[in-house]
Amino acid sequence: MEIGAFQDLMLRTYGERDSKRGVAATVAWLAEEVGELARAARKGTREEQLHELGDVLAWLASLANQLDLSLDDAARRYGGGCPRCGAMPCTC
Amino acid sequence: MEIGAFQDLMLRTYGERDSKRGVAATVAWLAEEVGELARAARKGTREEQLHELGDVLAWLASLANQLDLSLDDAARRYGGGCPRCGAMPCTC
Repeated sequence: MEIGAFQDLMLRTYGERDSKRGVAATVAWLAEEVGELARAARKGTREEQLHELGDVLAWLASLANQLDLSLDDAARRYGGGCPRCGAMPCTC
Repeated sequence: MEIGAFQDLMLRTYGERDSKRGVAATVAWLAEEVGELARAARKGTREEQLHELGDVLAWLASLANQLDLSLDDAARRYGGGCPRCGAMPCTC
């Protein structure tokens, strides 16, 4: 799936609720989901890890929608390799 | 950009370092980047917010690589709308 298509899917699925909730609450939800992913990475099944990876990605896209920014634009910063050293693989 | 292409880009750019670092350290870096995104969302410029969105996405992809899981598979859970209620927009 395209990153932009996923972000648009999140807008259509959760956009109205996101805009009512506001940025701070969306950041709080993202943090909570990162916690669930951390736990799943440590002791979860592969299915649970996949589930939590998807939830973090979804909240990240919701936050990008709230901020009116494109996750695809954000990803492009890495398009030429490491944005710090410019190499692929990174040599930082 | 495709989600899978971005994850592959992260593998080629950071995969060797990621595998040496291990899952726990990758989770720690992801958490740190979420903190930087939270700060940027509160008081950063649009450019800083975009930068931090990209960094969180990059660390999320690195963690998926470490766990040998596909972010694209994770995203597909949302392909039919909200995975909880099955509706688009969500009616949970």
